[in-house]
Amino acid sequence: MEGIGSEAASLAAHLGLDNLCWIYDNNHITIEGNTRIAFTEDVAARFLAYGWNVLRVADANDTDRIEQALGVFQKTTGRPTFIVLDSHIGYGSPHKQDTAAAHGEPLGDDEIRLVKRGYGWPEDAKFLVPEGVYEHFSDGVGARGAKAREEWTKLIDTYRTKYPELAAEIDSDKNLPRFPADAKGIAGREASGKVLNVLAQNIPWFLGGSADLGPSNKTTLTFEGAGDFQAGNPGGKNFHFGIREHAMAAIVNGLSLSKLRAFGATFFIFSDYARPAIRLAALMELPGIFVFTHEAMSNGEDGPTHQPVEHLAAFRAIPGLITLRPADANEVVEAYRYIMQLRHQPVVLALSRQAFPTLDREKYASASGLAKGAYVLADAPGGDPEVILIASGSEVSLAVDAHEELIAEGIRSRVVSMPSWEIFEHQSKEYRDSVLPPKVTARISVEQASTFGWERYVGSSGRMIGMQTFGASAPLKELQRKFGFEPGRVVEVAKELLGRP
Amino acid sequence: MEGIGSEAASLAAHLGLDNLCWIYDNNHITIEGNTRIAFTEDVAARFLAYGWNVLRVADANDTDRIEQALGVFQKTTGRPTFIVLDSHIGYGSPHKQDTAAAHGEPLGDDEIRLVKRGYGWPEDAKFLVPEGVYEHFSDGVGARGAKAREEWTKLIDTYRTKYPELAAEIDSDKNLPRFPADAKGIAGREASGKVLNVLAQNIPWFLGGSADLGPSNKTTLTFEGAGDFQAGNPGGKNFHFGIREHAMAAIVNGLSLSKLRAFGATFFIFSDYARPAIRLAALMELPGIFVFTHEAMSNGEDGPTHQPVEHLAAFRAIPGLITLRPADANEVVEAYRYIMQLRHQPVVLALSRQAFPTLDREKYASASGLAKGAYVLADAPGGDPEVILIASGSEVSLAVDAHEELIAEGIRSRVVSMPSWEIFEHQSKEYRDSVLPPKVTARISVEQASTFGWERYVGSSGRMIGMQTFGASAPLKELQRKFGFEPGRVVEVAKELLGRP
Repeated sequence: MEGIGSEAASLAAHLGLDNLCWIYDNNHITIEGNTRIAFTEDVAARFLAYGWNVLRVADANDTDRIEQALGVFQKTTGRPTFIVLDSHIGYGSPHKQDTAAAHGEPLGDDEIRLVKRGYGWPEDAKFLVPEGVYEHFSDGVGARGAKAREEWTKLIDTYRTKYPELAAEIDSDKNLPRFPADAKGIAGREASGKVLNVLAQNIPWFLGGSADLGPSNKTTLTFEGAGDFQAGNPGGKNFHFGIREHAMAAIVNGLSLSKLRAFGATFFIFSDYARPAIRLAALMELPGIFVFTHEAMSNGEDGPTHQPVEHLAAFRAIPGLITLRPADANEVVEAYRYIMQLRHQPVVLALSRQAFPTLDREKYASASGLAKGAYVLADAPGGDPEVILIASGSEVSLAVDAHEELIAEGIRSRVVSMPSWEIFEHQSKEYRDSVLPPKVTARISVEQASTFGWERYVGSSGRMIGMQTFGASAPLKELQRKFGFEPGRVVEVAKELLGRP
Repeated sequence: MEGIGSEAASLAAHLGLDNLCWIYDNNHITIEGNTRIAFTEDVAARFLAYGWNVLRVADANDTDRIEQALGVFQKTTGRPTFIVLDSHIGYGSPHKQDTAAAHGEPLGDDEIRLVKRGYGWPEDAKFLVPEGVYEHFSDGVGARGAKAREEWTKLIDTYRTKYPELAAEIDSDKNLPRFPADAKGIAGREASGKVLNVLAQNIPWFLGGSADLGPSNKTTLTFEGAGDFQAGNPGGKNFHFGIREHAMAAIVNGLSLSKLRAFGATFFIFSDYARPAIRLAALMELPGIFVFTHEAMSNGEDGPTHQPVEHLAAFRAIPGLITLRPADANEVVEAYRYIMQLRHQPVVLALSRQAFPTLDREKYASASGLAKGAYVLADAPGGDPEVILIASGSEVSLAVDAHEELIAEGIRSRVVSMPSWEIFEHQSKEYRDSVLPPKVTARISVEQASTFGWERYVGSSGRMIGMQTFGASAPLKELQRKFGFEPGRVVEVAKELLGRP
């Protein structure tokens, strides 16, 4: 019934995934009772409509028929196979078979005894493993696995020795671009597109795509031979997930489980559709890359339906997930460099639609500071700062402008670029205190998103420049004015905080 | 392609909604290009599989055929109608028709001129409204609407005068239960079930249901005549949404738009599936009621996949949405009393699976304090508190136990029950400062959820007892011990904060 199942089934048939077989346990029971209270569609006909090969087996206990059906699946080419298998939930339980209780509740000791009796199984033993099973696994499966692993390790070691250059590619971040300082700059999504194309050329198992927003997300891999992943071209690197964000994120997880490095992309606002699968990536420690462009209010005229004000906070709240909101093109590069080293953590990468300045890294600190989550980008000359401006993404260059004004007025300000809370939290206390010295309590956060959670860094005496409401429909410049995302406003708040009007 | 469409279509056919007609604009274009790159299913066959009446019109400009098809729809009973309408995106644009550009980009001035020329339409006028249209609307539609509104207002006024008792039902919260103090107490979901049954009897237009978890959510309306909302029984009050959380939340929004008061329920962990529609409820200012049980770690043995540690924070981050996490059965009652007065705000109600003590409201403050979002539940005798324990939901009684221990040891502690951040934020500064006096900086939050955001209330010198990771799989009591949700731990932290070991 879940929508994600429909999304995935539709795409699986489109892609002609003939290695895929779904067995539909047609027991007619859900927690509320018989499925007929909420679900009366013809599931087999629906899967035929998607383009699946559809088979029926009328009795889940008829193993011969199941074997036959699986044989048909193995011979089927060009489409996935769906086997409707009629079954009885709680089969063999005299009082619970075919009832919702068999789904939602434990059978209970007495009923379990009756089931075992019916099966001719020893009634008292618990967690009984019949003779031969352990042996089968430890001698068979276990030994086979150990041997395969040993052989693989040997193979890769030999390979590394014999072909050091090719082996280096495995973790390679070679040829990543470096962007020169530029007041106009380029968009976060543009920089991301350039990096993705380099990575996919460096790393044969790097692939991904967008939920029908490739041209907007700038995630299309355009180099020669990249190609589209389609039924006829399983070597293609560009996925067209269709308008199916939830299935996309789940597929990225599946690709990650297969040890491929995969990315999925859409507008940040639509990340909500994909959220359940992104949570699972964090829980399962899968290194999926979720590229979300058009973040903050960059979808100006589209209005609040397309402006993700609360999504940064909502993702920062998921344990184990890393959110990254780079400040300029070079932070985008460093973000990917960081991401490619991860093996067990998914990343949400929030990218601007609009161009933002490429900061002058001769004048300000290197973008490599991103790897620490937050770093001092610009500092006051001579002595400790009086006020700290903490910003992420497109608001970093805004904070830098405010900083220059404050410095010119003799106020010792510091700018901290904070692309990732989670990475920063994992640094030593010493490092964190060096970036945000505890004694400097005049702190201002600037982020074009809900202020929710920013109290952690600005403390009880700080101020937050951010969103308290949904956005509005207007060109971005007007929205920035309306909601106070301008250097002048930051300067004003800084002076208020310092009592220097 | 979106899964929610599949969920809704399946349910619409099941419910036999013959007043519903979907027109499928079959133009074969999405942002990435022709739909054939990601979508090759037979949509008409899929809708037949759901049980819809399916029609085709081969030309979107053939208004006669469209009228005929709509005529068939109007005569169709027992099933909704799906009209596949073949069309051309950007019809009449010589350079953009049938291209993705016509979807994702403005046509541009030159192309617009060409389209107008093709249509025989004045080429220079912009926002041109032909003669007679304004008149038709202001004399016709406008006047009709004004008259209808006036008549309705008159009717309801007369009704209120003539039948004051019946009229009072409209906002009635009569017969709501009051629960006696009880150390064992009852579960939040149980209390909720009792209240829902009273409300649905009081208010004829109050209805709702669960996404296949009615028996677990305790949302089933069991009084005589409540009945199931089904194809044959449109007066039924119990919805069986099936395992379709996203469609459920969207349907609750639709019911709310129809001025019904509707609720939808599932486990709190599955709220992620419904999140995009709940965000829309907040944006559209719809008073939907989202009942989420089995919150925090109450799904003990089911493990971290079923334990919503970050969901409170993620919902608190959505502007305009109210989250409510009641502390005992009487706070559940007050929560619904508060909810029923809302007209423009959706509510996420997080309810415990397990029994929690029904607090002694003679000894502690009245549960009616819930209406202020947070209130002083228990206080130190004599003078200002030294330490404030802030808690919500099941952790409130835990905080009360810790408080009693602290008082016994001569430490002046205060317990603040904080069921809703959003409601509390809307109180006067005076009230807020009376609950959380700024000078008392020794503060501890206790909540069985991510601590994300709690810095707002505990400040820079406070402490947070909450979750930093996903949960774990074990009976609830063991999890409480593992993660420090015990009175002894709260007492310990309070003493550390006060430097009184």
